[in-house]
Amino acid sequence: MNKELLLKLLEERKLKELYEILLKANPVDLAEILSELDEKDMVLIFRLLEKKKGAEVFSYMEKENRNNLIKGLSKSKIVELIDEMYADDAVDFLADMPANVVTSLLESTNAEQRRDINHLLQYSDDSVGSIMTVEYVELNKNMTVKEALDKIKKVGIDSETIYTCYVVENRKCLGIVTAKDLILNELDVKISTLMKEEFVYAVTNEDREDVANKLSKYGLIALPVLDTEGYLVGIVTFDDAIEVLTDEVTEDMQKMAAIVASDKPYLSTSVWEHAKSRIGWLLVLMLSATVTGSIITKYDHAFEAVPILVSFIPMLMDTGGNSGSQSSTLIIRGLAVNEIKFSDIFKVVWKEFRISLVVSFILALANGIRIFIMYKDINLSLVVSLSLIGTVIIAKIVGAFLPMIAKKLKIDPAIMAAPLITTIVDTFSIMIYFKIASVILKI
Amino acid sequence: MNKELLLKLLEERKLKELYEILLKANPVDLAEILSELDEKDMVLIFRLLEKKKGAEVFSYMEKENRNNLIKGLSKSKIVELIDEMYADDAVDFLADMPANVVTSLLESTNAEQRRDINHLLQYSDDSVGSIMTVEYVELNKNMTVKEALDKIKKVGIDSETIYTCYVVENRKCLGIVTAKDLILNELDVKISTLMKEEFVYAVTNEDREDVANKLSKYGLIALPVLDTEGYLVGIVTFDDAIEVLTDEVTEDMQKMAAIVASDKPYLSTSVWEHAKSRIGWLLVLMLSATVTGSIITKYDHAFEAVPILVSFIPMLMDTGGNSGSQSSTLIIRGLAVNEIKFSDIFKVVWKEFRISLVVSFILALANGIRIFIMYKDINLSLVVSLSLIGTVIIAKIVGAFLPMIAKKLKIDPAIMAAPLITTIVDTFSIMIYFKIASVILKI
Repeated sequence: MNKELLLKLLEERKLKELYEILLKANPVDLAEILSELDEKDMVLIFRLLEKKKGAEVFSYMEKENRNNLIKGLSKSKIVELIDEMYADDAVDFLADMPANVVTSLLESTNAEQRRDINHLLQYSDDSVGSIMTVEYVELNKNMTVKEALDKIKKVGIDSETIYTCYVVENRKCLGIVTAKDLILNELDVKISTLMKEEFVYAVTNEDREDVANKLSKYGLIALPVLDTEGYLVGIVTFDDAIEVLTDEVTEDMQKMAAIVASDKPYLSTSVWEHAKSRIGWLLVLMLSATVTGSIITKYDHAFEAVPILVSFIPMLMDTGGNSGSQSSTLIIRGLAVNEIKFSDIFKVVWKEFRISLVVSFILALANGIRIFIMYKDINLSLVVSLSLIGTVIIAKIVGAFLPMIAKKLKIDPAIMAAPLITTIVDTFSIMIYFKIASVILKI
Repeated sequence: MNKELLLKLLEERKLKELYEILLKANPVDLAEILSELDEKDMVLIFRLLEKKKGAEVFSYMEKENRNNLIKGLSKSKIVELIDEMYADDAVDFLADMPANVVTSLLESTNAEQRRDINHLLQYSDDSVGSIMTVEYVELNKNMTVKEALDKIKKVGIDSETIYTCYVVENRKCLGIVTAKDLILNELDVKISTLMKEEFVYAVTNEDREDVANKLSKYGLIALPVLDTEGYLVGIVTFDDAIEVLTDEVTEDMQKMAAIVASDKPYLSTSVWEHAKSRIGWLLVLMLSATVTGSIITKYDHAFEAVPILVSFIPMLMDTGGNSGSQSSTLIIRGLAVNEIKFSDIFKVVWKEFRISLVVSFILALANGIRIFIMYKDINLSLVVSLSLIGTVIIAKIVGAFLPMIAKKLKIDPAIMAAPLITTIVDTFSIMIYFKIASVILKI
């Protein structure tokens, strides 16, 4: 199936054939293809989808395309769509709409769905409540495997996953039973003997990234979400967890590049929005760099006496920046995947110190020899090499230290990445450089 | 359950109680706790685990800890472990062992497992073959749901997932049937009417990152892997895909920070290994920065005439570097998550150009005013501001362009990140700066 085929069938009004193809098509692919069509064709083809599939395709579409699509749909069709979607997807869709539209749409959706949506809408964007779904299978501990399978048969179609079922009594989750347990055991076995009473769970106000990490760590298809009183209120499934992990990485990378994080795709973000998310840090860092500038001003007699000194500034600054960002990147990532903890701070700084000795010595040697060959001046060689050693040592220690401290202070360590580290290290490296130059070259 | 409790029970020789706790413990947690024990206790507790659970716990342990553990195990116990592991986990373990040890161990494992392992060992580290598993459920299209469920009951325990089953005829995969289909349909329904003939699959030599992205895109629990002749040879499950995605992000971040990528945890990597993976790029970038230095040398008459010019070099270099790395980071990430394609190159460069106009104008204005207030010199203000505009425009275009070109040339775009971009942009910004200064200040 591809875009051209769909358009051709639509143009030739071969609706029956088109309908057959749409029936078989993968909803993820369909969402992608629909997004490439113009509004009119998009609406025409979308109307041919059966209700359930339409809701699924709609959930997979990007925000902009969804907005284009609903322009062509009647209110009753949109309400039908909301009724058919899983509550978490519906919330995802409604979260982007104006409040009055949400109210008007919710008034017409069916009572159960409305209750679920209102329930989910109350959770903050970062909490696991915002990604959980409320459609899951509840079992009773006194059921047999056969009764459990019968219950799943009845409610299964509307559940996001039937592979982990929850044994519930008075709204509390007593244990979990997997579909694997049900299939591999005899029909008369009691659920109470099958259920696992120790299970991994999340609490509604937990950070969604932490929960996604938990799901990935334990390799689970889904995990139950309990509210603060311990009542079962929803589940999180692995596909939502993967999405969260991907989004969080994108956000981390943006922060590490001095950009205000956004989950809007690059191409559909306007020039103004892009500029807005970048200008803040650029301004702050630009003005901070004047500190380094003013240190240089203090030493103008040094480079007036030995002008060649100026030509090594870029090399020193870049090497300092690169050394520092190597360290900070490794530490930020290590913290994000829980490989490094705050309590490792001394181990980490000590390790970076030793690495900086090895690395800076090699760099200083290579550069010292190069400078001596080019300028035949052993003192100049010495000034640059010693400055390089000092710069790299400071860069690596600052680069390791700041993300760890940020973690402790509950600031996102991703802020302590290349741009900020570079600006800080620049100041030190210029100071070291001119200090060493004044002493050795006796300026 | 925690480390202290286990050690206490072990010390007091309460083995029965210990055994009971281990029986209930989550294998992921157990792997974590075992890793914190010293070798002797680790071996003692590991021996108390039942075979299947032991193999599972072993699969979740880090390489170093596994190596410590097996030092305390007999060869026959290790062979038993390999027999019990899923073939893909066994391969993962054996891949780190010396070849002669692998041969000796494989000689003693059971024939079927040996065949599976040898089969998997032939795939390269990057291919999906290296992460696939060969334990899956095969069905026949003429079976009924009841027969299928009976078959799963028989072979299910040894399969990594029973939630997606594969309908196979003459080793070709005709379609897939989910456990959901089996549970929700009546017992006498034929598999041939249930199976989905259009399904997402991977080919053995496909890149494992691409396959992980596919699994995540379609939200699948598992997908089938076909060899180049179309025969079904294995499956990839979502938990392996999550691991691949996490590893690939770590590798990308390392490359973006000018580090040779490694999947070894930070803390267990030695100082020498760390230094080795960092020194290469630092040397290359340091020597490249001398180009910028030599441009400065050419203009020494300029800053001898107007020494204050030197003090703006750090600010210009940093702002150029930061602007460029903002762009390159967004593009690299966009390419990695398939949000941006090579065909978008003109759209992307045009967007970055417009963003650079907005951003550079604001930066130039802020800095121009600051300089005028500090030095009361409109020409100096103008020189720095115009240089800033030129630098930012070039930085953003280079930052957007290089990752796109790398993608086209099948080089990893992550190489074209902050460190390299900064070095390239430095050269341009220094050239622009002194050129503009010569003209406006008539030096």
